[in-house]
Amino acid sequence: MVYIVVVYDMQADRTRLMLNFLRKYLTHVQNSVFEGEVTEGDLETIQNKTRETLKSDESAIIYRMSSEKYVDRMVVGEDPTDDARFL
Amino acid sequence: MVYIVVVYDMQADRTRLMLNFLRKYLTHVQNSVFEGEVTEGDLETIQNKTRETLKSDESAIIYRMSSEKYVDRMVVGEDPTDDARFL
Repeated sequence: MVYIVVVYDMQADRTRLMLNFLRKYLTHVQNSVFEGEVTEGDLETIQNKTRETLKSDESAIIYRMSSEKYVDRMVVGEDPTDDARFL
Repeated sequence: MVYIVVVYDMQADRTRLMLNFLRKYLTHVQNSVFEGEVTEGDLETIQNKTRETLKSDESAIIYRMSSEKYVDRMVVGEDPTDDARFL
């Protein structure tokens, strides 16, 4: 397993395309940011699907850590993941 | 030194406030994403200044790694940092 953070920058009216597939694998932590633990296979799928989805003026960065323990997460302002606790 | 990635979500007409101060410490890698190596002191300044800058419906996440070596960075689509190489 690896821990990844995906940030993307795309046209506002097209973000739903990324939301719909990324939420199958990851947690939605901010408007255009997802994170979570996935298999190497999932990561490959995410990379391929991201490549297919983005148009030429859009981009995504996938940060990959071998484990969540190598990263600390500090939230300033409202933490959107708080909502998830009450679902 | 620590390696950080800052992602923020704020009103489009106010993003300049974050851009202006974050670019003093970090590299601008995507629309609302900065990253780079900073001192613990810089990180504290960045946290405080981010807290002061954001309004209640806005947020930022700061991912902190003890070193850049713990994170791999994969770019899908255009890499905005490519521009920097030619400056």
